[in-house]
Amino acid sequence: MASPVNAPRGMRDFLPAEKAQRERVLGVIRDTYSAHGFDEIETPVMEDSARLHAGLGGDNEKLAFGVLKRGLTADDLHQATDSLELADLGLRFDLTVPLARFYATHRGELPRVFRAIQIAPVWRAERPQKGRYRQFVQCDIDIIGESGPLAEVELISATAATVRALGIDGCSIRINDRRLLTSMLTALGFPTSSHSAVLITLDKLDKLGVGGVVEELKDRAFPAEPVAALAEFLNRPEASMDLGFGEAAIRASLPDGVDETAITELAAIGEMLGEVDRAVLEFDPFLVRGMGYYTGTIFEVTHPEFGYSLGGGGRYDGMIGRFLGTDVAAAGFSLGFERIVDLADLPDTLAAETAALIYDDSVEPARLMELKAELVAAGKRVRLERSTKNTRVLLDSLAAQGFLRVATVKPDTTTVEDLEWRDLTPAV
Amino acid sequence: MASPVNAPRGMRDFLPAEKAQRERVLGVIRDTYSAHGFDEIETPVMEDSARLHAGLGGDNEKLAFGVLKRGLTADDLHQATDSLELADLGLRFDLTVPLARFYATHRGELPRVFRAIQIAPVWRAERPQKGRYRQFVQCDIDIIGESGPLAEVELISATAATVRALGIDGCSIRINDRRLLTSMLTALGFPTSSHSAVLITLDKLDKLGVGGVVEELKDRAFPAEPVAALAEFLNRPEASMDLGFGEAAIRASLPDGVDETAITELAAIGEMLGEVDRAVLEFDPFLVRGMGYYTGTIFEVTHPEFGYSLGGGGRYDGMIGRFLGTDVAAAGFSLGFERIVDLADLPDTLAAETAALIYDDSVEPARLMELKAELVAAGKRVRLERSTKNTRVLLDSLAAQGFLRVATVKPDTTTVEDLEWRDLTPAV
Repeated sequence: MASPVNAPRGMRDFLPAEKAQRERVLGVIRDTYSAHGFDEIETPVMEDSARLHAGLGGDNEKLAFGVLKRGLTADDLHQATDSLELADLGLRFDLTVPLARFYATHRGELPRVFRAIQIAPVWRAERPQKGRYRQFVQCDIDIIGESGPLAEVELISATAATVRALGIDGCSIRINDRRLLTSMLTALGFPTSSHSAVLITLDKLDKLGVGGVVEELKDRAFPAEPVAALAEFLNRPEASMDLGFGEAAIRASLPDGVDETAITELAAIGEMLGEVDRAVLEFDPFLVRGMGYYTGTIFEVTHPEFGYSLGGGGRYDGMIGRFLGTDVAAAGFSLGFERIVDLADLPDTLAAETAALIYDDSVEPARLMELKAELVAAGKRVRLERSTKNTRVLLDSLAAQGFLRVATVKPDTTTVEDLEWRDLTPAV
Repeated sequence: MASPVNAPRGMRDFLPAEKAQRERVLGVIRDTYSAHGFDEIETPVMEDSARLHAGLGGDNEKLAFGVLKRGLTADDLHQATDSLELADLGLRFDLTVPLARFYATHRGELPRVFRAIQIAPVWRAERPQKGRYRQFVQCDIDIIGESGPLAEVELISATAATVRALGIDGCSIRINDRRLLTSMLTALGFPTSSHSAVLITLDKLDKLGVGGVVEELKDRAFPAEPVAALAEFLNRPEASMDLGFGEAAIRASLPDGVDETAITELAAIGEMLGEVDRAVLEFDPFLVRGMGYYTGTIFEVTHPEFGYSLGGGGRYDGMIGRFLGTDVAAAGFSLGFERIVDLADLPDTLAAETAALIYDDSVEPARLMELKAELVAAGKRVRLERSTKNTRVLLDSLAAQGFLRVATVKPDTTTVEDLEWRDLTPAV
């Protein structure tokens, strides 16, 4: 007996049932964004090392798998001081760097406002752990070249529609604006130089609660006065009220003196959305989002029952144009594909669309193939299955594979009308 | 102006129209094989280096991109004598090694007869040239665990159906059997030790013609007698007649004394196929197929107008079980996905299913989003497009992107019924 053979550490095989679910989810995402006017693109899995390490990827750059140069000699190895010198290519760790590179390469061939979707695997060389893989799929949706809030509105509307189409009910889209966050901190008395550091703690509000956040800010020795002002602000009664969405509500959720443009734009997004979409929008003045590259709105798809977001994004006007050397307006969403695959509630193939034909040596193979062809032509998914002694095991195996209608072919079966079907119970 | 930024050498970006065509082709392939009972699987893009270099990949093993180990120190680099020592993982160069590894990992969870399809990119570190890329998609279809000709029959039938569904007319499926090739060479007097070498030349029959093949065999100094016998056999009048498909035709195409089992099995395949599929089957006694791992039938999808095959395969009973340390019956097809994408003749999105809405600042954004939502709900793919001075350029751009119905939203447009549609001509 050979020793067990496995996929590389932290990387997964997908068996037929898992692969089918992934493709179903992918199909719904693809179709919904396509209906909303987004164009799908594809980029190679590798990018030049220099571009992967150009500073667009933050800490993730360290997690890029390096791909060995060709034709390296022993001398090359001995002269290298760092293994990265031996890698001219690397596997992408996200889809933002490839999108920025793609846009720089093809800008002239793309529409003025480019609505892009890319669904593809990325790789991160990190220690594998539960629910964390070294190869996983990201799904990025971006609108490039639209500086007004219509970009956010189209993104939110298409994303809300996608989540609905995936059968995931009860989601909210929380929204905020980086300009509100920083002007709020200024209004509370935090010096500008402390903002990023304060936001790191504020980002934990959901986990730590108000007390925990204030405690951590004190521990980290931020000036006492603004910390006290923030504590007071967080503890005021209105902070826990649901004010709905709109200019008044946004204003009531913030201290005086915050960025007026951001308030107006946020309120406009709510007004431009249809009723169904507006109903899931929630203003969250303490939504931070990790990445420092956001320049305006930020958003997150959340669900009260899950302790994690299903996706998020925001406006990041400085980034897509980096390889072009020019600023380009951009806003985008990244959906957590792997989480969504687990949560999506989509119908499996219908029993009536499957057909397993059980046969033995008494059946002419040509006849068997004729029956199969006839059923395929009628739109069925057909599986031929040689009979075994233990019929129970056979039927259970077929049910587990999603074949829920079974018939035994007999020597005198001449057409599909002669087949006697029995329904199997889906495997749990 | 920044210098041009491109995808890595030999690797391609796919713009929206190309990506859409690829996905359409992929969908047809996936749906057709699924209807024929095949299950789709997915494996990681990387495999452990040791497995990529285990001898299953022939010359392609040399083309595997190596992926750098993590945490290498300068010492590690200096002690290495070969760069491959620094790579514990590599990118797959085909889908056969991953399939063999997948089967070894999951055999217990798979049906007794496993009909697998995998459509996925592979990478080869070779010099890029016209039509040859360093990342490209392969499409492998295999039946594992069925030793009888029903495997070949299901493969051929599903593949013929796929080619038809892709709108590629006039293809043939040429078939032969390695056992016929070797027993034919024996019957003509070639010693067994020379067979692989002779087959390399015989494989060029289409290109070189009978004279060229005989010349090359003489040049390569094979014994004169069997070369003369082969020449005589290739030049006999029957060699250029179309004998149809069947036992008599197969026998008439071969010298006396060839493998009887192989003849019977090939003829049985023809008899088991339905009329439509049998009509495209052609026995080709000189079909060789490069890879040495085939153990029985070999086949190739060809088209009289193309100088290359659209796919090929055969029976390779020794290979899939390699990582299990046991023999497993297997037969498979590999379709040339990249070629098929170019040849497939599939309908693009219908004009009636697209809708571009042209707007300017006189239109309420909320109204615009309402119109969009209504059209999406009616099954359209909708694009919002801000008006520009040059309407011609705008309309051409929309047509090029596949939006063939356009309406301008006016300040008094309240419902989709108010929109006046105009049809655009598809871009060539």
